[in-house]
Amino acid sequence: MTTGKELGVAVIGAGYWGPNLARNFRSSDDWELRAICDLDLDRARRVAGEHVAVTTALDEVLARDDIDAIAIATPARTHQAVALPALEAGKHVLVEKPLADSFAHGAQMVRSARERDLVLMADHTYCYTPAVLKIRELIAAGSLGDILFIDSVRINLGLIQPDVDVFWDLAPHDLSILDFILPGGLRPTGVAAHGADPLHAGRPCVGYLTLPFGDGALAHIHVNWLSPTKIRQMVIGGTRRTLVWDDLNPQQPLSVYDRGVDLAGQSTGGTDRSDATISYRLGDTWAPALPHREALGQMVTEFASSIREGRASRTDGESGLRVLSVLEATAASVRADGAFSQVEREPDLRGKVSAA
Amino acid sequence: MTTGKELGVAVIGAGYWGPNLARNFRSSDDWELRAICDLDLDRARRVAGEHVAVTTALDEVLARDDIDAIAIATPARTHQAVALPALEAGKHVLVEKPLADSFAHGAQMVRSARERDLVLMADHTYCYTPAVLKIRELIAAGSLGDILFIDSVRINLGLIQPDVDVFWDLAPHDLSILDFILPGGLRPTGVAAHGADPLHAGRPCVGYLTLPFGDGALAHIHVNWLSPTKIRQMVIGGTRRTLVWDDLNPQQPLSVYDRGVDLAGQSTGGTDRSDATISYRLGDTWAPALPHREALGQMVTEFASSIREGRASRTDGESGLRVLSVLEATAASVRADGAFSQVEREPDLRGKVSAA
Amino acid sequence: MTTGKELGVAVIGAGYWGPNLARNFRSSDDWELRAICDLDLDRARRVAGEHVAVTTALDEVLARDDIDAIAIATPARTHQAVALPALEAGKHVLVEKPLADSFAHGAQMVRSARERDLVLMADHTYCYTPAVLKIRELIAAGSLGDILFIDSVRINLGLIQPDVDVFWDLAPHDLSILDFILPGGLRPTGVAAHGADPLHAGRPCVGYLTLPFGDGALAHIHVNWLSPTKIRQMVIGGTRRTLVWDDLNPQQPLSVYDRGVDLAGQSTGGTDRSDATISYRLGDTWAPALPHREALGQMVTEFASSIREGRASRTDGESGLRVLSVLEATAASVRADGAFSQVEREPDLRGKVSAA
Amino acid sequence: MTTGKELGVAVIGAGYWGPNLARNFRSSDDWELRAICDLDLDRARRVAGEHVAVTTALDEVLARDDIDAIAIATPARTHQAVALPALEAGKHVLVEKPLADSFAHGAQMVRSARERDLVLMADHTYCYTPAVLKIRELIAAGSLGDILFIDSVRINLGLIQPDVDVFWDLAPHDLSILDFILPGGLRPTGVAAHGADPLHAGRPCVGYLTLPFGDGALAHIHVNWLSPTKIRQMVIGGTRRTLVWDDLNPQQPLSVYDRGVDLAGQSTGGTDRSDATISYRLGDTWAPALPHREALGQMVTEFASSIREGRASRTDGESGLRVLSVLEATAASVRADGAFSQVEREPDLRGKVSAA
Repeated sequence: MTTGKELGVAVIGAGYWGPNLARNFRSSDDWELRAICDLDLDRARRVAGEHVAVTTALDEVLARDDIDAIAIATPARTHQAVALPALEAGKHVLVEKPLADSFAHGAQMVRSARERDLVLMADHTYCYTPAVLKIRELIAAGSLGDILFIDSVRINLGLIQPDVDVFWDLAPHDLSILDFILPGGLRPTGVAAHGADPLHAGRPCVGYLTLPFGDGALAHIHVNWLSPTKIRQMVIGGTRRTLVWDDLNPQQPLSVYDRGVDLAGQSTGGTDRSDATISYRLGDTWAPALPHREALGQMVTEFASSIREGRASRTDGESGLRVLSVLEATAASVRADGAFSQVEREPDLRGKVSAA
Repeated sequence: MTTGKELGVAVIGAGYWGPNLARNFRSSDDWELRAICDLDLDRARRVAGEHVAVTTALDEVLARDDIDAIAIATPARTHQAVALPALEAGKHVLVEKPLADSFAHGAQMVRSARERDLVLMADHTYCYTPAVLKIRELIAAGSLGDILFIDSVRINLGLIQPDVDVFWDLAPHDLSILDFILPGGLRPTGVAAHGADPLHAGRPCVGYLTLPFGDGALAHIHVNWLSPTKIRQMVIGGTRRTLVWDDLNPQQPLSVYDRGVDLAGQSTGGTDRSDATISYRLGDTWAPALPHREALGQMVTEFASSIREGRASRTDGESGLRVLSVLEATAASVRADGAFSQVEREPDLRGKVSAA
Repeated sequence: MTTGKELGVAVIGAGYWGPNLARNFRSSDDWELRAICDLDLDRARRVAGEHVAVTTALDEVLARDDIDAIAIATPARTHQAVALPALEAGKHVLVEKPLADSFAHGAQMVRSARERDLVLMADHTYCYTPAVLKIRELIAAGSLGDILFIDSVRINLGLIQPDVDVFWDLAPHDLSILDFILPGGLRPTGVAAHGADPLHAGRPCVGYLTLPFGDGALAHIHVNWLSPTKIRQMVIGGTRRTLVWDDLNPQQPLSVYDRGVDLAGQSTGGTDRSDATISYRLGDTWAPALPHREALGQMVTEFASSIREGRASRTDGESGLRVLSVLEATAASVRADGAFSQVEREPDLRGKVSAA
Repeated sequence: MTTGKELGVAVIGAGYWGPNLARNFRSSDDWELRAICDLDLDRARRVAGEHVAVTTALDEVLARDDIDAIAIATPARTHQAVALPALEAGKHVLVEKPLADSFAHGAQMVRSARERDLVLMADHTYCYTPAVLKIRELIAAGSLGDILFIDSVRINLGLIQPDVDVFWDLAPHDLSILDFILPGGLRPTGVAAHGADPLHAGRPCVGYLTLPFGDGALAHIHVNWLSPTKIRQMVIGGTRRTLVWDDLNPQQPLSVYDRGVDLAGQSTGGTDRSDATISYRLGDTWAPALPHREALGQMVTEFASSIREGRASRTDGESGLRVLSVLEATAASVRADGAFSQVEREPDLRGKVSAA
């Protein structure tokens, strides 16, 4: 099925995100966009353009032999119900974030894909931006050393969503990025979350997430719908260097600081280094140039490559599942007044298909 | 004792902060600097200048009739031991922050001052900066409406202190400011704190404080010694307007945004407003001009005024005590893995002397 | 011809700018896009979409009765050759900036339109941005007082154009904005220009324009293709307030400073005020909120309104001509080593049709 | 006279700048501050401190054998009258900027110092800041390549001076920096200057200076007393890299951009490269760390070193003279309505004593 030059794809859902996917599949050399499926045929037609079938019936799409993969851009609560029959029909599946509306649903999808050796990929778009790709590369190359802390701020005057709180709306971006850039993926030892609903809107509009990730390191995420100013900033502190990513600064999005604290030597045999020699580095700052590439274009290319090479994609179903597990633990912690909440794991799911 | 034109003052401690206090007492019309007391006489002499006595003996200072007040700039662990005899000798007392090294010590000082109708003042210097005075004024005038959330970030590459952690080093600034600007003072319903020591320095170098303060509102403080960039920013979100204070932007330190979310009307009799009509304001921004005045000069003036008028100072001993109570609860929460910790209260101490 | 509900329009030129015009005409309630004319029919077809004619022949377009106006998006050197027959055929004409490739050509176009009472409009797109519309409004309302100086910086790493220098490439933006916001339009008493070609590219890549505009006031423009950073900033100093427009700051593009120097009183009868009392205002800063509207949409609406109301458009042919006159004087000054150069005028052209 | 361990120095003038000089001489290991001379003895006493003589008589100072050098911090119009007798008395002389109130006076001072082999140094303080020292070093090392253009902006709401215009008040900073960092020093081929006095204050309050410096390169300086915002920024464009210095950004004052335009190859034998292949570099940005050192401390050290080593100082009298020559040409250009004005030279003065 994947031997032809171009892979056939259908986009399910022609609402907000579907047209972006359709546009990128259409302009990709790897893909042939073959169908748009939406309950609203007019909407499907506007997205389809020429030579692309439109339908309201998922079955029709799944029955076609020239469709290798489907891309799901429907509301999260329907992801599992679309993905499972698609996988059963032997289609590779790309899913808009979040992977599903619950960990259990996501886990079903991951298991189904594994059983059939199909690619299940989460559309964690941010991970394909030039900035995040560069951050991953720098961390992997050891430029930052061991990660000590990560502080992410994602705040703006946001639409108060009717069905999700500020954690489910904004934190998936930060969590999927953490999963992508951290060498071991997103595997916190627990989650403590504090939410505030000062307007009595019925759900948290301001949220803070604390994620210890072993050996004293800590990630912290601030998401907020009530801030009059927009901030998208992530600080990643390492033993060797510290990186600051300011997503709203087009002239210098990434800054790598050769500044920090060094604890060296140790005068006693004690287990902590409280009496170690402390020194400070105050070195240069470096801002790597980034290429100008559309993230979604990179993402659909990775989807094709992972299918062709029979490997997990860089943002596979399991990464989507790890994000879901933290979101569920977040909700539990908020309910428990900020107490640390365990993060669910499915260890048996990992390892068979290794990531690129 | 306070009928004369100028009040006599002695500064105890000629190390880091004492010279600043001495300089401001000397240039004040309200004060006559009469003595510097330090165990290191040479250091005392360098600070004293002409016509000012130097001594190593606190007793000598306390015995002088022409000294109405003392200002303590010694290490925090000695504050109580200096303040109690001074109060017993009938002197008014100003104390460098934090008020004491424990809530119990601070409470002793507050009680002693109340029994003798003496002024006990915390040197919360930030509260006398033009920016914080303006914030307090705006909140008191209702310009921001009810406070919904406060987010404070105070991070930089800081000296890792040998005896205190990042909470005790940096958070007193934020806490004393909150105490000063919030109409009801610093009275959170509890504290949840998360600290990280990723360098194994023996104490938290990165810290997050969460302080719910009733009716869904939340304050959050991020303190950090490991950040390569310096940020001093506080966002104060209100029902009417939101204020952003950027302490490192000399050209526009305060910005008041007439932007926000309004929840109005309510279609059901339910207790939350999840079905209320949501609307967004996207109005102008306003940056009030601030006078150029040295905070310490304002502070010593307030010290004199509160003595002369027989009233509590704007940053009285009880405000110092409230800061201590949160710092102790912070330490307890860190020990309890981030669980909410109660904040100690001394309700009987309040009310007799009312603040200006 | 202009009695129908929608005006018919053809876009001439389907290269870089034509598609933007076509898109805005298509989505406008005032316009019916009827034809695209380009020598490259394929390119025309891609822009045209359904129900829009494509042609390589300007004559065909001009012969159609259902086409009231044409929009010219061809290279500047062809503007006059397209505009004159269109005007002769009774069509209203919109022209991409600059109006023409010389003052003489532009003046021909302006005269032709006046003789036939047709609208000739320059597509000075920047003038229809929310920021520039607000600046014009503030100046007209007297919020800034009399204008004292204007300093505009428009620099970035730019494409070195094969046929124009940095003045003709970038300065038309600043000049058309000055023409739009200054109460009397762009009428400097002369132009001094300095250009540098340090790379020996054959034309100036760095340029400075000095434009005195009477009573001691001065405008200055810095355009630069060699700057590694991008700056788009205009400072407009007035007797009452000073405005700073930072086009690259989406969060606060306009700042109005109530700061400045006041010269009041005068102790002698002399004509200068060198002995006047000088005082300084250090008042608040105000950042007006701006609506989110696409400038091109506003521009095509203005084109329709000026046609329907039989009046000059806000950026009429004469404004385009004033920009050309300064550009020609700039070139003359550069040739004369920076000596002041006169700005050509066509006073007889003005006044008949008054601007909105 | 200069063989002893410490050099003796007297500061002439105890007004605004004198105390800063006195403080730095006092804390220097190279110097022994021996006298303060001012017509106002009280003022002199406040600056002198212990063990330093105070006097109103310059003669007394010049007669002392233990005074090797004098530092002049009196008004510019008196510099020559103080410096000449000091040089005649065999003293080395440091002069606050500008060197003198005219080129002729400055030239007298330079000649007098040369005849006696004494050090005459201009206190161009900015040249001893870590930022400017680093810029000089980078240019000297070829990191920027050949200099193509320099654009300097130095604007703020400034005091309108009673006796000098904005050029003489602010431009000496930029000019002395250019003289310091350019390999050949400040040797423009001419000066064109435009000033505006829109408030009719009797002298230019807004000024622009254009300084071609050979082979197509250009420096431009904008000085302004009427800007509500403060900007101190210099862009130095080179063939290899471009440097931006933002003096008000403490976190990243220097940024070196590996971006730019390259013109390579040439398809014809023509003398310009208009048909050359143009390419663009879009490389990384680098922000060198700078040490924290007080400029004045470095400056007094250089004064001592140049005396001891019998060499011209890095900012010698001739550099002060070059600054004066441009300031005089500026005034001439302003009088001539912006026409290019020649810059006076004293070629015979150079070369004998070579700079470090």
